[in-house]
Amino acid sequence: MLQDTIAAISTAAQDGAISIIRISGEEAIPIADALLDRSLKEKDSHTVTYGHIIDPLTKEAVDEVLVSLFRAPRTYTREDIVEISCHGGRFITRQILQLVLAQGARLARPGEFTQRAFLSGRIDLTQAEAVNDMIQANTKENAQLAMAGIRGSVRKLLDPLIEALLDMIANIEVNIDYPEYEDIEEITQEKLLPKARAWIREIEGILQRADSGQIIREGIQTAIIGRPNVGKSSLLNALLEEEKAIVTDIAGTTRDIVEGHIRLEGGLQLNLIDTAGIRTTQDIIEQKGIEKSYQIMEGAQLVILVLDGSVPLQEEDRRLLAESADKTRIVVYNKADLARPIEEGIAISAAKGDIQPLLDEIHRLFDHHRIALSEPSLANERQIALMRQAHASMASAISALEQGLELELAQIDLQEAYTSLKEILGEVHREDLIDTLFANFCLGK
Amino acid sequence: MLQDTIAAISTAAQDGAISIIRISGEEAIPIADALLDRSLKEKDSHTVTYGHIIDPLTKEAVDEVLVSLFRAPRTYTREDIVEISCHGGRFITRQILQLVLAQGARLARPGEFTQRAFLSGRIDLTQAEAVNDMIQANTKENAQLAMAGIRGSVRKLLDPLIEALLDMIANIEVNIDYPEYEDIEEITQEKLLPKARAWIREIEGILQRADSGQIIREGIQTAIIGRPNVGKSSLLNALLEEEKAIVTDIAGTTRDIVEGHIRLEGGLQLNLIDTAGIRTTQDIIEQKGIEKSYQIMEGAQLVILVLDGSVPLQEEDRRLLAESADKTRIVVYNKADLARPIEEGIAISAAKGDIQPLLDEIHRLFDHHRIALSEPSLANERQIALMRQAHASMASAISALEQGLELELAQIDLQEAYTSLKEILGEVHREDLIDTLFANFCLGK
Repeated sequence: MLQDTIAAISTAAQDGAISIIRISGEEAIPIADALLDRSLKEKDSHTVTYGHIIDPLTKEAVDEVLVSLFRAPRTYTREDIVEISCHGGRFITRQILQLVLAQGARLARPGEFTQRAFLSGRIDLTQAEAVNDMIQANTKENAQLAMAGIRGSVRKLLDPLIEALLDMIANIEVNIDYPEYEDIEEITQEKLLPKARAWIREIEGILQRADSGQIIREGIQTAIIGRPNVGKSSLLNALLEEEKAIVTDIAGTTRDIVEGHIRLEGGLQLNLIDTAGIRTTQDIIEQKGIEKSYQIMEGAQLVILVLDGSVPLQEEDRRLLAESADKTRIVVYNKADLARPIEEGIAISAAKGDIQPLLDEIHRLFDHHRIALSEPSLANERQIALMRQAHASMASAISALEQGLELELAQIDLQEAYTSLKEILGEVHREDLIDTLFANFCLGK
Repeated sequence: MLQDTIAAISTAAQDGAISIIRISGEEAIPIADALLDRSLKEKDSHTVTYGHIIDPLTKEAVDEVLVSLFRAPRTYTREDIVEISCHGGRFITRQILQLVLAQGARLARPGEFTQRAFLSGRIDLTQAEAVNDMIQANTKENAQLAMAGIRGSVRKLLDPLIEALLDMIANIEVNIDYPEYEDIEEITQEKLLPKARAWIREIEGILQRADSGQIIREGIQTAIIGRPNVGKSSLLNALLEEEKAIVTDIAGTTRDIVEGHIRLEGGLQLNLIDTAGIRTTQDIIEQKGIEKSYQIMEGAQLVILVLDGSVPLQEEDRRLLAESADKTRIVVYNKADLARPIEEGIAISAAKGDIQPLLDEIHRLFDHHRIALSEPSLANERQIALMRQAHASMASAISALEQGLELELAQIDLQEAYTSLKEILGEVHREDLIDTLFANFCLGK
């Protein structure tokens, strides 16, 4: 595989103490040698050399550097890699990158080093994705999931499934191709069905854990609803205060428009859905009533329905209770006078910051997702979508088998399931999709 | 010198592909070993080891890392140094730093690694300052000056001066202590004076070049003055447009309040002095007249006096011409009708963007500062102030010698000059000043 040599600044684009310029490819060592007052030619792999970058035109020293040498194939990309560690000012870092490019390296695209690691077969596509997940990780849980991904947890998950699938496919194949061989066990719809059903149950378990993973990684889409003046804003404030919440915008990680993130003890995160719902529910209720609240609930994984505990239930409360009944929901009675009996729900006092019962309930409802994650899981929407395709293919195969249709028909479905799983690992792929995927990485990775 | 082990994130505090956590001190290697699934104990200096960071509590892998080992004394601080190169997400980087600190390292103060390099005698104080200058450098010229400083240009500059001074001091010493020895050349005021005068001329040359250095490094403090409506704003806009100016705030590098920076071709930079002068000169002239303009000019290294070339000189113009006569000044006739004769000054048309004659004149006046910088120079106010002290001490010695006063008096002055030069290099210093100086560095350096 003959490729050009690429280079990029691999550290963040801000002033720091140290910056790193990374070069990968056949020309990495000659390029470094052309710029250094030392030669790397005789140096061993995995060594660091002290020296100076010299501008080849002016012959002047540009910076004092440490240069790490990694010789192919025991490197990130499986190509020769040179990492120049220079003073971390933005100007000097860019100047050295310019000198490297002037020697014939090409500026790397975002994620291109990792793309080469993938294309060279050092890592599969799920491991490459996990590298990006690690950089994006903003909680311990996410970092742990990413680490597992880097170490190949998805491949370990898929390998037995692929093997079982290949076994079914091979058996059918042999029966179709050599129906006359007597010493081959005859495969019938009845013999295949238990295997296919066991396989699809495995997939269903994985998809369930993947949902847990999404919830831990991306947070719980949470809608706080209720009539005007029942204390929704006080509750929000109490949540923000109690949990020392980090309210931020994390682009591209959530499916709805989110107003803020509240990180709870132990790794759960509430993403507060903002459909203009939380701030202006009052207007909405007044204008369009329950219909709008229902829309707000639509995308929610958790609905917190706030009722005013100091007054009897209103007609509107009852309608919100009815509309949210099929959601994962917590009913809270705010301003609750404990002397008064409470129906379904828990009593809190948002104004006094007394919301622990609500937090406990959230943990009761969602902590199992964290526990589920001790087992390996899929890491993202791409992997989940392909897994769903595999599931659909197998469901179709099972249906064909149950109807006693010809094995050739199930065979096509099984082949499709196989392709879907291989695609998760990147072992079957479309070039353009791969390019798009790596374009989401940061520069220099 | 028994010191604790320090650690910090040495790359910029933003998400990037790679981050580096640097550990320096006796415990650097044991701390790394406590966190790695490989041991560095048997590894050679200047090698890189691939491994994983393992949380000692959970025994779980935290990240995949490359660890560079530098064994004392051939390191930046002359102590053992371990650099952990991890995935460049802010969260994972901080998590690894926390693990390092939990193993007993102390979080390094800003600049503390470089401070240790200085305190261990690996570099002198001017080299340490140059490290920070390199990180701050925002032009090629500044980076070049910083590189020269890192390589010890100031010491090379001072060494012969210190030697000459020691020679004078020693000669006087011997004459005072052993006046009876006949084979010692008798030192007289007359014999010393030429040496002292040669010495002080050297210092004056250095101080002059230091001014050039300041101008190149920090830019030219520039005041644009003139009557209302002569076109000062148009000129400013033309300058900003023509030169694709980078108008930024660079804290702590300039002596006046600066409105913006205009970088000219070839490394000159104009710092536009903002004493509410540029924007509201109109009001000022009307209110307080010329007096205020004079204040604006006070701190300027360049005054650009804008006159309206389309009308005869006004009384106010003449006063501004008079007041700015002793400054480095360029008089420009804006809206100049070339048919009309122009006295001193150059014609431009700011509105048409025709300001090249002004740019040419700026280069004519200031380019020699760049040329002066091909010779080594002092790097900052601290060094210049101490050099001025040395100059004052020697001037005092010369005055004593000229008056034929006792050699002991000159001797005191020479000792003071010596101390000032040694202080530039940090070989005589006050602890608290040193701490303040390094506190301006960035974290992890």
